[in-house]
Amino acid sequence: MTDAAELARQAAGELYSRDVAARALGIEILAVDTGRATLAMRVRPDMLNGHAICHGGLIFALADTAFAYACNSYNENTLAASAAIEFLAPAREGDLLTATASEQSRGRRLGLYDIEVSNQQGTRIALFRGRSARVGGNVLAGAGDK
Amino acid sequence: MTDAAELARQAAGELYSRDVAARALGIEILAVDTGRATLAMRVRPDMLNGHAICHGGLIFALADTAFAYACNSYNENTLAASAAIEFLAPAREGDLLTATASEQSRGRRLGLYDIEVSNQQGTRIALFRGRSARVGGNVLAGAGDK
Amino acid sequence: MTDAAELARQAAGELYSRDVAARALGIEILAVDTGRATLAMRVRPDMLNGHAICHGGLIFALADTAFAYACNSYNENTLAASAAIEFLAPAREGDLLTATASEQSRGRRLGLYDIEVSNQQGTRIALFRGRSARVGGNVLAGAGDK
Amino acid sequence: MTDAAELARQAAGELYSRDVAARALGIEILAVDTGRATLAMRVRPDMLNGHAICHGGLIFALADTAFAYACNSYNENTLAASAAIEFLAPAREGDLLTATASEQSRGRRLGLYDIEVSNQQGTRIALFRGRSARVGGNVLAGAGDK
Repeated sequence: MTDAAELARQAAGELYSRDVAARALGIEILAVDTGRATLAMRVRPDMLNGHAICHGGLIFALADTAFAYACNSYNENTLAASAAIEFLAPAREGDLLTATASEQSRGRRLGLYDIEVSNQQGTRIALFRGRSARVGGNVLAGAGDK
Repeated sequence: MTDAAELARQAAGELYSRDVAARALGIEILAVDTGRATLAMRVRPDMLNGHAICHGGLIFALADTAFAYACNSYNENTLAASAAIEFLAPAREGDLLTATASEQSRGRRLGLYDIEVSNQQGTRIALFRGRSARVGGNVLAGAGDK
Repeated sequence: MTDAAELARQAAGELYSRDVAARALGIEILAVDTGRATLAMRVRPDMLNGHAICHGGLIFALADTAFAYACNSYNENTLAASAAIEFLAPAREGDLLTATASEQSRGRRLGLYDIEVSNQQGTRIALFRGRSARVGGNVLAGAGDK
Repeated sequence: MTDAAELARQAAGELYSRDVAARALGIEILAVDTGRATLAMRVRPDMLNGHAICHGGLIFALADTAFAYACNSYNENTLAASAAIEFLAPAREGDLLTATASEQSRGRRLGLYDIEVSNQQGTRIALFRGRSARVGGNVLAGAGDK
């Protein structure tokens, strides 16, 4: 494992330990690397909306979390500035959703990430595109502020 | 109250009774009318992310729910096709967030809705723009399928 | 006129003198103020697409130009980072389109602007939402670089 | 060439013959297939904005045109409902821009297309995501309305 990949893994571990919301949603980290992250979430009964399918907000939350772990993988505090999501197919109770984030562009302050959400059969559930902005400071304490 | 406003209120009540996800997030309906809806959510400790602010996915979920209640207010089953969100300011633990949805355009099948999310001090937390698509059928059982 | 409004007017004049593309499209500036701009464009025969309506790219170009004049109104060089457009109604040959840009949010580096495009009858043709990023330097020469 | 690919080619030829705007911008069709299109445009002096780079509206126009040829490739009249563009790098005078559109999803009425715009060196200039809606009728006269 390269130093950069190890840093990405450590930053994700630190974020996840503090990320109460992601853990409350049952989101798990499958893999993290520089500019990349793969996360999973199972659709629970308490995630269904009035149309008896997974609430779009929770599909977004999964994608947004993958986005966060990808754009914070350089150990520089980074927030979502904006994001867009396309809902392609419904997710149903019991579905295991996987979100894969990949970096499309990264400047000194701004970044662009694409996240794809699929179910256990490989059906694409949603496409997400997020824009990140660095806000100063580091994810890992004691790593030194740049 | 007009018949249309009463229908909007009934459709929202029916959706909310089935909307396990919205209730699990503590989302409450403050007002619903034709093409409009105002909802509220308090930021709980289990809604914070790794940066100690409200997870963006849950701010999106509140806005998306207001969007759903506004675009289903005609009693015609309608789903989100896509949405975009701009994060303007962080929301913190204990904040009471209000999402106000207003219809911008509505054709035979497609609709466009703007949602504004503010905190208890009137600070704008996020702007959300959602595109809806009718999928057939009605929200209220026995209301007759068109 | 306030100093800020006068600066906005001067920056717009300077940009417009160099903005060959806007002038080639027949775009005219109707009004500019701090964080605001109103521009107009008439739909010419050479602006029609294969469906015999105004090419969406040129409606976008009008909105994007209003966006540029609004976000450069502080005399700080600012570029579009991303933008989204909703096409609500077609524009036809001879229509006089007006784009009105208004600032929604402005931080140290990033800004958010909403632009509405209407025709001569007040029908809304498109809604545009643009995100800007400062890139350093000033619009007006000799104004001093900050 | 399959029948579907031949139909895509014919529909594109018909659209292009009527697409005054695309031709006025010097846009050329390099390739068209079912759900796909590749177009090119050279950045002319009259395409520069006040920052002396290609006007974002014209980069959008190129991407939007590729989008149109891809989503009309089934010979069913289809319009852009909305689109989002990310500007990754500036385009300069003389640059030859290529836009490649690929279908991400296509239902009975709605479609989703991703378009990538690159320059002659392969640098990505912009990413575009467009949502299409069928409006009835066919591109090719005499092809029969479905």
